[in-house]
Amino acid sequence: MDTIKLFCPATIANVSCGFDVLGLCLDFGDEMTITKSSHTGIRITEVIGADLPLETKHNVAGVAGLALLKKLNLNFGFEISIRKNIKAGSGIGSSAASAAGAVFGINALCGYPLSKKELFYYAMQGEALASGTAHADNVSPALLGGFTLIRSYEPLDIISIPSPQELYVTVIHPQIELKTKDARSVLKENISLKKATIQCGNLGGLISGLYTGDYKLIGRSLHDELVEPVRSILIPHFAELKQAAADSGALGSGISGSGPSVFALSRGIETAQRTANAMSAILTPTDIPFETHVSAINPKGIQLLS
Amino acid sequence: MDTIKLFCPATIANVSCGFDVLGLCLDFGDEMTITKSSHTGIRITEVIGADLPLETKHNVAGVAGLALLKKLNLNFGFEISIRKNIKAGSGIGSSAASAAGAVFGINALCGYPLSKKELFYYAMQGEALASGTAHADNVSPALLGGFTLIRSYEPLDIISIPSPQELYVTVIHPQIELKTKDARSVLKENISLKKATIQCGNLGGLISGLYTGDYKLIGRSLHDELVEPVRSILIPHFAELKQAAADSGALGSGISGSGPSVFALSRGIETAQRTANAMSAILTPTDIPFETHVSAINPKGIQLLS
Repeated sequence: MDTIKLFCPATIANVSCGFDVLGLCLDFGDEMTITKSSHTGIRITEVIGADLPLETKHNVAGVAGLALLKKLNLNFGFEISIRKNIKAGSGIGSSAASAAGAVFGINALCGYPLSKKELFYYAMQGEALASGTAHADNVSPALLGGFTLIRSYEPLDIISIPSPQELYVTVIHPQIELKTKDARSVLKENISLKKATIQCGNLGGLISGLYTGDYKLIGRSLHDELVEPVRSILIPHFAELKQAAADSGALGSGISGSGPSVFALSRGIETAQRTANAMSAILTPTDIPFETHVSAINPKGIQLLS
Repeated sequence: MDTIKLFCPATIANVSCGFDVLGLCLDFGDEMTITKSSHTGIRITEVIGADLPLETKHNVAGVAGLALLKKLNLNFGFEISIRKNIKAGSGIGSSAASAAGAVFGINALCGYPLSKKELFYYAMQGEALASGTAHADNVSPALLGGFTLIRSYEPLDIISIPSPQELYVTVIHPQIELKTKDARSVLKENISLKKATIQCGNLGGLISGLYTGDYKLIGRSLHDELVEPVRSILIPHFAELKQAAADSGALGSGISGSGPSVFALSRGIETAQRTANAMSAILTPTDIPFETHVSAINPKGIQLLS
């Protein structure tokens, strides 16, 4: 096998009360084609659908791939072509899809010398290029599918969390520019112990609800005490989008990753679609371009297409 | 039925990474006898095994019972006799056992007008007398058994979390005086967002491990980033007790409630017993009196004995 084609899914990091520890995988995403080459190193041959750098060292897939190549010590290289369906800067894991895709694909073309969990580290090097920190909350669900918990960074310890079948995700992406670095800079370095405890209660409730399929508990737990109050000021009409989700019967909602996308979780695809319509109705009268997605929880993560 | 006898179990609050949100129920505890009386109000007739006040308003069981009586609006009252096996101030839920026992027993003698979850509030009033705050992390596992999560205080939302069958608890109680109020006063009001995130990762890991019966994950998750580092300085030989638990093969260990008791979780009763022996060996050469307990996770909580 010298060429593979991959589906590289979008992902939601944080998931409200799971700031910096939770992520989930969506059922739409990019396509990536990776081909073995007699030239060592990595060449990004094209990026279709987005204005992203082709120079390997400035491309997220390139940097992640190079990190893995250094480990594998190969006498051949790879050419990567990417069809981006996930908009860069949307807050639904565009860079993670490319970083995770590159390392998954290279590993596959080499006969799977590393496990998925061993690939996290290399994919995270792509994230470091994109956002300044080698975070794992998007690459984990992109590689493993479903919900993932980062139990620890030192050492890296990622846990898959199950989720009930009728859980659906609505995403609305207001197309404003909001860099991850800027969204990080508004965060307070210190918080009250009391708020941390409230966050822990909700995170525990969300994980419990995911294990037991208790949709109401999932809904009650979707509150972010730490980050949403400060970060949401960067997202236009955030309070109205949240209210629209609640009025549509969504279980709960929050900021996707570091924004600007806003997500909601619902029981059943009809409620998720109704939520998408209601959120759209908030942004339609404004001059902010936007797009919406309705998605199941994708249990598989990155997949070979051929 | 005019008289009931109850088993009122000891409990462990916090459970390391679950500060102020997690609790678990032990299989040893107090006995309480409650008898209907034609006199309204509550009379504490005796407390065997502990030097605790008999005056209703200064007795934890009395205060919790009075709070419930106010709700039930009865034309009769109750006499309560308590045999304390749980030492006051030990950090394994002595006051919660009495507070929860009183409200459970009174509710039972009235034909169960309230659910167990409706009793939390009244039991918490007893905790307020004992420690200055109406906390729920001991009364919840005392009433429900097993592991409990306080998802939220406002509104009160308590979740039962399952645990694997081979999970055992070791408790060592160094008999020094350490008041809950003092143990609270050493806590920092503010913490770093980074530490809160580490705590969330571990709490999520612990809950996930409890659902899946992944003992190793339970062990990896038993780290308290927020409270143990400051509170443990009040507990003599804490680091050595922790090391002894680790050396004995315990999954992890930490401060029980606000101390001074130290707990460890182990897979299997043999490891839990070996851990008790190793912890005992740390305190034996000192002049600190102590006692140890080895317990299964008690899935039932408070039980009628007759």
